[in-house]
Amino acid sequence: MLPFARVTIIGLGLIGSSIARAVRVTMPTVRITGYDRDPGVRDTAVRIGLCDDVADSAGAAVIDADLVMLCVPVGAMAAAAADIADDLPADAIVSDVGGSKESVIAALRAVLPHAVLVPGHPVAGTENSGPESGFATLFRGRWCILTPEEGCAEAPVARLRAFWEALGADVELMTPRHHDLVLAVTSHVPHLIAYSIVGTASDLEEVTQSEVIKFSAGGFRDFTRIAASDPTMWRDVFLNNREAVLEILQRLTEDVTMLQRAIRWGDGDTLFDLFTRTRAIRRSIIAQGQDDARPDFGRDHGETAAV
Amino acid sequence: MLPFARVTIIGLGLIGSSIARAVRVTMPTVRITGYDRDPGVRDTAVRIGLCDDVADSAGAAVIDADLVMLCVPVGAMAAAAADIADDLPADAIVSDVGGSKESVIAALRAVLPHAVLVPGHPVAGTENSGPESGFATLFRGRWCILTPEEGCAEAPVARLRAFWEALGADVELMTPRHHDLVLAVTSHVPHLIAYSIVGTASDLEEVTQSEVIKFSAGGFRDFTRIAASDPTMWRDVFLNNREAVLEILQRLTEDVTMLQRAIRWGDGDTLFDLFTRTRAIRRSIIAQGQDDARPDFGRDHGETAAV
Repeated sequence: MLPFARVTIIGLGLIGSSIARAVRVTMPTVRITGYDRDPGVRDTAVRIGLCDDVADSAGAAVIDADLVMLCVPVGAMAAAAADIADDLPADAIVSDVGGSKESVIAALRAVLPHAVLVPGHPVAGTENSGPESGFATLFRGRWCILTPEEGCAEAPVARLRAFWEALGADVELMTPRHHDLVLAVTSHVPHLIAYSIVGTASDLEEVTQSEVIKFSAGGFRDFTRIAASDPTMWRDVFLNNREAVLEILQRLTEDVTMLQRAIRWGDGDTLFDLFTRTRAIRRSIIAQGQDDARPDFGRDHGETAAV
Repeated sequence: MLPFARVTIIGLGLIGSSIARAVRVTMPTVRITGYDRDPGVRDTAVRIGLCDDVADSAGAAVIDADLVMLCVPVGAMAAAAADIADDLPADAIVSDVGGSKESVIAALRAVLPHAVLVPGHPVAGTENSGPESGFATLFRGRWCILTPEEGCAEAPVARLRAFWEALGADVELMTPRHHDLVLAVTSHVPHLIAYSIVGTASDLEEVTQSEVIKFSAGGFRDFTRIAASDPTMWRDVFLNNREAVLEILQRLTEDVTMLQRAIRWGDGDTLFDLFTRTRAIRRSIIAQGQDDARPDFGRDHGETAAV
């Protein structure tokens, strides 16, 4: 009944450790083996009991796996694949959680040309990093996108789908190229803009950093959450989804320029029309359970007694 | 002991109704009179018992006030001031909550040249609008900026400071011009970018709106909260803080262009350096109590049992 009996997780950060926790909760009989190239992370994983086994090498970790999940930054996928290549069982399914798919597939295929590969990407996360920041419900009600290569057999895709559904996720299939474009819009460019605006704000001479922090409740603080995400992971995402990110960024720049012109010329109707349209998108996101319906994300305001 | 005995609130939306609720809780003996030019909002205010009195006209609402708080969109300030001009007691303090200050002061002064004016701006809000979306703790632990004109007497500023502190806010004084620049950075440009990116995402041909909504948990949904804010209020803010918004937007555009170039040329160091720096800002915002320390803003993830 279980899609896999022995799951190996390579990379025990936020996502890898959340998968371990979610497997433990939802499929308690599955044997979980973990590995991280950072010995400190391995020690932490042992201390908090994240896995059944923490291996000393990537090769030892995969030797009897039936699912190997690569949970490392996109730029480290090739090295992680090379580390397991010699010990990977021929029938093990290899998957990953990388935020860009075309480049990851190319990197993995260069090292593992004959592996049973089903690339994936759970669209979930928080701004925190490391093995202790994961939690078992991270994927619940979130989407996981699988991007099998052309000609991939159906059975491994079905098994991986069952695995993610067991963790509470909804699964969607997409081509790698379409995934990269969708994520450029819904994740990569928003992160880039958030990083950028936080950087711009902290570099001004006329407004001090202390003022930016103090008055951040006016909207700025919403950007700082995703601008606190893991720097290595995000550097790799931008370098590896370059074409799609640059395309969407160009579109955004044109649209911002249009708004800039509307402000300069006092064209309130253009502003009002856009600001009305964007409200509807928020309502749909909430209606589909992809965000918290409470105002202000449900942030703590003390006792919000309805007076 | 109370800074004011009779407070009149003109405009009973999110901010006006939150002030009414907060006064009711923190200074229960203060008499609260409300007015809104929308009869439907006045009816709602009566029905939910927001004020002691809901007046039928702005003039009647201010006739015995010692504080008149104008809580209307920035573009409606002049009209609201004109409506009260004939009935305003000479010694009443007039204040407002507008998000831009130089233009609001000019608009109010054109109609109320001799009023005791102490302009203000509570840096707080949610994406919701209307009299029923307010709550008493909205200002608690948030900053309220007062921007008295040059030569303003100290006593009215001290009274208004005491009023906001009673509602739970911290108070800071600033020149109107500096306020407008600080808010352009911490609030106005973030809102404009959020509106813009949500608009861009919903206009693409290659990615459907339904995909944008489905996969919004990758970061996009953080932008949609502030892009769901009141369209009239925000149109007015941009038209009334034009210079500062255009200046900050120009800076941001330069910085985004620099990142765009780094991505195009594969310059990972530039990206990594920025992404590391921005993490520190988030930590400071949380350390100063200006945002929720819980990951993901404390959004609901089901039972996040530490497994």
